[in-house]
Amino acid sequence: MSLDITLEELQLAARNHALPLEALRHPVTPVGLHYLLTHFDIPLVDPRSWRLQIGGNVERPLTLGLEELKERPARTLAVTLECAGNGRALLSPRANSQPWVLEAVGTAEWTGTPLAPLLEEAGLGSGALEIVFTGLDRGIQGEIEHLYERSLPLSEALRDEVLLAYAVNGQDLPPQHGFPLRLVVPGWYGMTNVKWLQTITAVDEPFRGFQQDVGYHLRQSAEEQGRAVTRILPRSLMVPPGIPDFPARTRFAEPGSLLLEGRAWSGGGPVVKVEVSVDGGGSWTEAVLGEGVSEFAWHGWSYEWEAHPGEYELCCRATDSEGKTQPLTPEWNYDGFCNNAVQRVRVVVRSPSA
Amino acid sequence: MSLDITLEELQLAARNHALPLEALRHPVTPVGLHYLLTHFDIPLVDPRSWRLQIGGNVERPLTLGLEELKERPARTLAVTLECAGNGRALLSPRANSQPWVLEAVGTAEWTGTPLAPLLEEAGLGSGALEIVFTGLDRGIQGEIEHLYERSLPLSEALRDEVLLAYAVNGQDLPPQHGFPLRLVVPGWYGMTNVKWLQTITAVDEPFRGFQQDVGYHLRQSAEEQGRAVTRILPRSLMVPPGIPDFPARTRFAEPGSLLLEGRAWSGGGPVVKVEVSVDGGGSWTEAVLGEGVSEFAWHGWSYEWEAHPGEYELCCRATDSEGKTQPLTPEWNYDGFCNNAVQRVRVVVRSPSA
Repeated sequence: MSLDITLEELQLAARNHALPLEALRHPVTPVGLHYLLTHFDIPLVDPRSWRLQIGGNVERPLTLGLEELKERPARTLAVTLECAGNGRALLSPRANSQPWVLEAVGTAEWTGTPLAPLLEEAGLGSGALEIVFTGLDRGIQGEIEHLYERSLPLSEALRDEVLLAYAVNGQDLPPQHGFPLRLVVPGWYGMTNVKWLQTITAVDEPFRGFQQDVGYHLRQSAEEQGRAVTRILPRSLMVPPGIPDFPARTRFAEPGSLLLEGRAWSGGGPVVKVEVSVDGGGSWTEAVLGEGVSEFAWHGWSYEWEAHPGEYELCCRATDSEGKTQPLTPEWNYDGFCNNAVQRVRVVVRSPSA
Repeated sequence: MSLDITLEELQLAARNHALPLEALRHPVTPVGLHYLLTHFDIPLVDPRSWRLQIGGNVERPLTLGLEELKERPARTLAVTLECAGNGRALLSPRANSQPWVLEAVGTAEWTGTPLAPLLEEAGLGSGALEIVFTGLDRGIQGEIEHLYERSLPLSEALRDEVLLAYAVNGQDLPPQHGFPLRLVVPGWYGMTNVKWLQTITAVDEPFRGFQQDVGYHLRQSAEEQGRAVTRILPRSLMVPPGIPDFPARTRFAEPGSLLLEGRAWSGGGPVVKVEVSVDGGGSWTEAVLGEGVSEFAWHGWSYEWEAHPGEYELCCRATDSEGKTQPLTPEWNYDGFCNNAVQRVRVVVRSPSA
């Protein structure tokens, strides 16, 4: 299968990166293996002069340095983040953008201070409707120059588990994950989790910035406004079994008992079922589903497969507590968001050596 | 410009990643921004049961655990590593492999114990010709199943600065960089620096494994043996100035004094000159060249550009102490190695706002 990729898209694929699927074995993804998407450039921030401003429709605007934020109550949460554009390269026709295959995901332990008490301290005005989060990363998209910014309705921004995070996996944030401070909103796709935060602003009208109003919508044409992308749809991925061919990526395994394993997650509710197919989705068997790494993180799953020589297409499929499940084929949309179609892994089970 | 990329190559581009060019600002690349190439899968290693075996033509074979290695004399070296396939996607026709653009590089501070004293302790036999380094990563390439392994001639293996590294930037190696132990050979392309080491073997005949004898050769056709890839050719890269368009990657800058900056390196000798062109390589001016981050790492460089409104193609070009310099156009070879042609960055300098 050949893809019509531009050099610019390939540059994006080189800069940004997804989770190597064998790294699904780690319940918490090591730094450097977690997926990463940066629209513009990674800012270089001097933490001594950096300040977070909390303002807009609040009674007491706040200015906070990094040390002040670290002195506040801290909370550590394991959270699974996935890019809303994950699966884009498997759609046809395909939007010109970051050409993700299907592994733009990761789970990290984010440490930070909860947002809600800070907003309470600032005192939200009675007309406040949304909270706007503005990063330091500036660029052009859709012919509009802007800082990367996104908003949340109050009801989401005030959730207990929404963090302003300054550490990941016990270390200061590395530059690429938003140093010195980023937003973490469990359950929502990655674009929500604004990195390199500089201002938090309470607004009385719905925020209409590019990344909110134009970007990240499910639409059928460029003209349509469409429906906003919000929470992560259910998905499961497996560690490809056996060994790979470089560069063809076909997997080769020995016959016998083979443990298939992977992770499954959903932003809509806990995953309640993972099924496995060894015939390309023709028939399904339920896998053993483990506990979530946290309330906001993926579940491990496993399936003991008795593998006989032959060629197989392995698939896995997650269902969440809302009854949402993964489709067998992608649901197309113009910008290539939320493609949670099942993973397909081609495996050759070899005949026993003579 | 559209590229004919296979889905398998795109999967490689998603798994592996290059240095986002703005991260050239860091003299030492943060973990997660350093380039990464893994042929097969990243092994999951239990450090308690892991052992390094040193054997072959030695008088006293050694078996060493991780703690024993850490108790030996330690040395920390900042080393620039670059993938031999860097620049491959800019060649035409292009080998089917990891489709790097031009930023598969990074500089890290590797901490480990020097190899030479260990080989001395093991006592090399008089016939020993090469040292073979074998990783734990297994797969298929060129239709041959093998563990990733490479050899070095004794003269290279016994250099003072060749390390068995167990830490990077002051931390235990993350899985993707070779946990628990990897080889670091300053000056040589990345493929030399075997990750997930399990055995080190002294051999009396030239090693003929796939990655040594077939892979990593400069050849004009599949049939030709070609010339082995060894040391890193000179290269310079710049931080693209201004702000980017997502996803077109064109840069936009304001008129006036603009500091162009970047890094330059060579495995053949220190970089002695970096030149900058603002007209696509038509004319060149010498940049200010800084000291190397270490004897084995890249140099910073900078150039103050008086930018007037218009469209430009910025280039930079490094020359090393051996007189080797970067070509303006790639030197084609069948597998797409060692393409160190100059970087070209398209910049639009905008007219002053009315």
